[in-house]
Amino acid sequence: MSTIVNRRDLDFIMYETLQLDDILKQERYSDYDRESIDAILDLSQSMAEEKFQPFAAYLDQNEPKYVDGKVEIIPEVKEALLAYKEAGFFASGYSYEMGGMQLPWVVHQALSAIFVTANTSATNYIFLTQGAANMLNTCGSDALKATYLPNMVAGDWFGTMCLSEPQAGSSLADIRTKAEKRDDGSYKITGTKMWISGGDHEMTDNIVHMVLAKIPGSPAGVKGISLFLVPKHRVNDDGSIGESNNVALAGLNHKMGHKGTTNCLLNFGESGDTIGYLVGGENQGLANMFHMMNEARIAVGMAATVIGLGGYLYSLDYARNRPQGRHLSNKDPESPMVMISEHADVKRMLMTQKAYVEGAQAMILYSAKLLDEQATANTDEARERATLLLELLTPICKSWPSEFCLEANKLAIQVLGGYGYTREYPVERYYRDNRLNHIHEGTHAIHGLDIMGRKVRMADGAALKALAAEIAETVDTAKSYPDLVGYCQQLGQSLQQIQNTLEAVSKAADPSLALANATIFLDAMGHVVVAWVWLKQAVAATKGLVDCSASDVNFYSGKLAACKFFYRYELPTATAKFDLVASLDDTCFNLTGEQFIGH
Amino acid sequence: MSTIVNRRDLDFIMYETLQLDDILKQERYSDYDRESIDAILDLSQSMAEEKFQPFAAYLDQNEPKYVDGKVEIIPEVKEALLAYKEAGFFASGYSYEMGGMQLPWVVHQALSAIFVTANTSATNYIFLTQGAANMLNTCGSDALKATYLPNMVAGDWFGTMCLSEPQAGSSLADIRTKAEKRDDGSYKITGTKMWISGGDHEMTDNIVHMVLAKIPGSPAGVKGISLFLVPKHRVNDDGSIGESNNVALAGLNHKMGHKGTTNCLLNFGESGDTIGYLVGGENQGLANMFHMMNEARIAVGMAATVIGLGGYLYSLDYARNRPQGRHLSNKDPESPMVMISEHADVKRMLMTQKAYVEGAQAMILYSAKLLDEQATANTDEARERATLLLELLTPICKSWPSEFCLEANKLAIQVLGGYGYTREYPVERYYRDNRLNHIHEGTHAIHGLDIMGRKVRMADGAALKALAAEIAETVDTAKSYPDLVGYCQQLGQSLQQIQNTLEAVSKAADPSLALANATIFLDAMGHVVVAWVWLKQAVAATKGLVDCSASDVNFYSGKLAACKFFYRYELPTATAKFDLVASLDDTCFNLTGEQFIGH
Repeated sequence: MSTIVNRRDLDFIMYETLQLDDILKQERYSDYDRESIDAILDLSQSMAEEKFQPFAAYLDQNEPKYVDGKVEIIPEVKEALLAYKEAGFFASGYSYEMGGMQLPWVVHQALSAIFVTANTSATNYIFLTQGAANMLNTCGSDALKATYLPNMVAGDWFGTMCLSEPQAGSSLADIRTKAEKRDDGSYKITGTKMWISGGDHEMTDNIVHMVLAKIPGSPAGVKGISLFLVPKHRVNDDGSIGESNNVALAGLNHKMGHKGTTNCLLNFGESGDTIGYLVGGENQGLANMFHMMNEARIAVGMAATVIGLGGYLYSLDYARNRPQGRHLSNKDPESPMVMISEHADVKRMLMTQKAYVEGAQAMILYSAKLLDEQATANTDEARERATLLLELLTPICKSWPSEFCLEANKLAIQVLGGYGYTREYPVERYYRDNRLNHIHEGTHAIHGLDIMGRKVRMADGAALKALAAEIAETVDTAKSYPDLVGYCQQLGQSLQQIQNTLEAVSKAADPSLALANATIFLDAMGHVVVAWVWLKQAVAATKGLVDCSASDVNFYSGKLAACKFFYRYELPTATAKFDLVASLDDTCFNLTGEQFIGH
Repeated sequence: MSTIVNRRDLDFIMYETLQLDDILKQERYSDYDRESIDAILDLSQSMAEEKFQPFAAYLDQNEPKYVDGKVEIIPEVKEALLAYKEAGFFASGYSYEMGGMQLPWVVHQALSAIFVTANTSATNYIFLTQGAANMLNTCGSDALKATYLPNMVAGDWFGTMCLSEPQAGSSLADIRTKAEKRDDGSYKITGTKMWISGGDHEMTDNIVHMVLAKIPGSPAGVKGISLFLVPKHRVNDDGSIGESNNVALAGLNHKMGHKGTTNCLLNFGESGDTIGYLVGGENQGLANMFHMMNEARIAVGMAATVIGLGGYLYSLDYARNRPQGRHLSNKDPESPMVMISEHADVKRMLMTQKAYVEGAQAMILYSAKLLDEQATANTDEARERATLLLELLTPICKSWPSEFCLEANKLAIQVLGGYGYTREYPVERYYRDNRLNHIHEGTHAIHGLDIMGRKVRMADGAALKALAAEIAETVDTAKSYPDLVGYCQQLGQSLQQIQNTLEAVSKAADPSLALANATIFLDAMGHVVVAWVWLKQAVAATKGLVDCSASDVNFYSGKLAACKFFYRYELPTATAKFDLVASLDDTCFNLTGEQFIGH
């Protein structure tokens, strides 16, 4: 079996649960049908398995090195990325207007995810480039786009995002990188950027950095941030590569995971002038950066999900082929051993992984479909609905998988036992790689503040109402199936808990206290959303079970079992969390640093 | 501040919460008083900080290598262990009879833990040796003891435990290593052992392996396992090192963490005869191995706890010194940044770590004190009570910290953000090191089966009754303090939930189904036990607050806050788990391998 994708499940989510057909009927995607998408996903899987997966462990063990101011990366990475480029996959994330394939975002997300599972570190370069290119396309001038975009879309030049600085990670208000206007309208950039993934390497002729900086005299804080395009090498008027732009690699960060992606400390303007070009208006940097935020955050959630998926599939395959021990009821030590997938606790660990990973995957692809709906909506109302849902779900899509699919990775190690703890098996690498996803693209805490402080309240609660309407629609269908009625009731109660919790905290005298446990709210609300998408899957599986093949009986009944699992083992854990948040508990909030250890 | 121990807290737990004075009054420990113990712990801390902590990260990055059939380890490990030996610390884990210091186990455990926090990988060699020596002392013949024990007690020879084989980890019934009797009464050992920590190295003149093997003709399964002492080098009659005993290093396992401890695949009897000596009776191997099981498992729990502690102390210190962002209520970006310990979610993450780590530490030291009570009891009744409590609490002591102090390590990374994910800071190493503790010394699942299938039912439920009596005693004291009354009620309800759950599952028609969710029961019952030791700490802190110094006001009020946190944020999560276990849910239990992915 493939250990990077379960195509049966992916197809089930896309077509049976999320009705991708509806999207394919839209004019924007009229060049695609199920058959052509099948072919694209088949090709993705075979290329990922042949060109990316084989060296993932080797790359992890042989991370990029800093040698004489340059980065040395094992050649397999460039070779794989070249194969990806030559197959035209770089174009999957772009519109026709940009020279791309204009795939539905659902399909782009699904095919990208297959490569992430195969080799997370090697594929980061691709997605960083696509994010930078889309941002440039949305906000950049025609001249800038003409010079840079075709090279990025083709995968000839890679891109990065340069936000953080050593003293300012989550707190972008405090960045110090400076952009001083030059006579020709470009800017002189000086400063230091930290945690820049893909920040330097020799794999492409150029690297296009999207850099946040402050123009002297701008307002303090985030209102004074502007966005600049800063190439590693300057580009001549004829489009050829010119002299160095003095973006100096000051060092590489050595991480616990994602070891194959260079992560850099970059100095701008230290060894000579670094020239940058304003993208969008002055002081509009943060707003411009946020233009592609939903896509980027959903992509991080998808990465967290499929790193979990990799562990799940690997540990499932292992468990079904590793004999050890006997059923508890069998006291005869001379009887043959059973596969460990027969043991109750191993089943529980596999099911927990399945419920987290397949639930997260359905949630992410649902959100990716909202991006497609945004792009294809025929009415303002439809577009507004998609936008509201997307705004509300994005922090959950980013965060929930980073918490629970990491937990899945923990369990994958446990299924393999001592073997899982060694570097001979991929599950420990998945666990290390996935731990990043709580941190980057907005920390867990920041998404808690985002959802509880902003998203649930935006437009007078319209986003939450839109979600409630979606849930009600699912419940309306589901309640006609007797086996699903209980879930409908439970889900309704959970939705009510969300509303009760928000009402309770709205009464807090101190708004900061109201948000003190926002992270806990984020996790709990994520459980409700995932419970909802599990109900959607259960409806689809119930329908699928009518007149299906014997192997599909297994598939669909496994889906129904996973839904049951989620409602019995998982959703009830949200209740204690909502109660806690609603209580406006101030135990941690009021604590001083001294109280932690007594001095 | 020290990042390996909070002595104020350790003293609080030992003297104010657990009344170590009672133990020190016993004749067995009459050579010790608080002053001498203080000096021992002070020395432990300074040696751990000076000799062990400085190279922990370097050791992690430079793991032992397999070169020409031998192991190369960085010299710092041997130097540190030599310093430990020369200070006499090896003797801390042994009785006077064995030539040891005969420290109270509480103190031995506490001082050992300080070294574990400083450098987990380097110290594993010590504790493996102490475990093997104590087992030999308990079960071995006088002749064997005379030859091997003094060298082990002195720290001149190290020891190992050889249980697992490549095909038999949790399933010891299926080991294949063979022991054939020789004419002189010794045995010829042939077979392969896997996951042997400290299994080979050149740091000592000899290594003493305690090996499980089967004598041909023995009963099948665990009833036919015997225990053998197998030296790396044979020992001449005069006690000098003789020829090789043909224990061949077949390879090193490369792990995610614990990288500095060699972990070996060993072949016995392949390159020539390997001689072993029976320890205890034939076929009594498992029982003999279990003699030191409580101590060993409590020590693993302590290691999991203090790896969590290391992350907690480091992230606390970091948070109090890292400026970033402003209070939510402060909208002025030109105002100075605050330390991140001021942010509500950082406080929550620090408090969660504190509640887990200090709760686990108090539980472990309570259990260590039970070992002391076993050793000093004046009546059979007192000894029986200590034994029952120990049997019941050991699986929780081993398992709960491996789950929740690992969670603490996850949060320590999060407090440091991107920095925490790099290898420049110790928190990611703690996270990798701690992941082992779910797996070795009995997996999480095995301890679930142990507590739910055996311990709660043993002696007609006497162990659980003994625990209930202990809890009742704490509640009796606590309820006279108005601030603690609420906790008393909550704890009483939780204890009732344990009993209700056990009663519900006792009605299962299929005993295997009754145990299907034993791991979840283990976690939930752990929460109740830790809630209880938090109440014990709250009583002590409430008493301490009377007429104390200003700095102690901080310390004690922090303890009370942590107790409150545990009862508000943590204990309520156990309810959903008990409900689930009591429901005899069979969702996972009935699933087939095919249902997971459809084929």
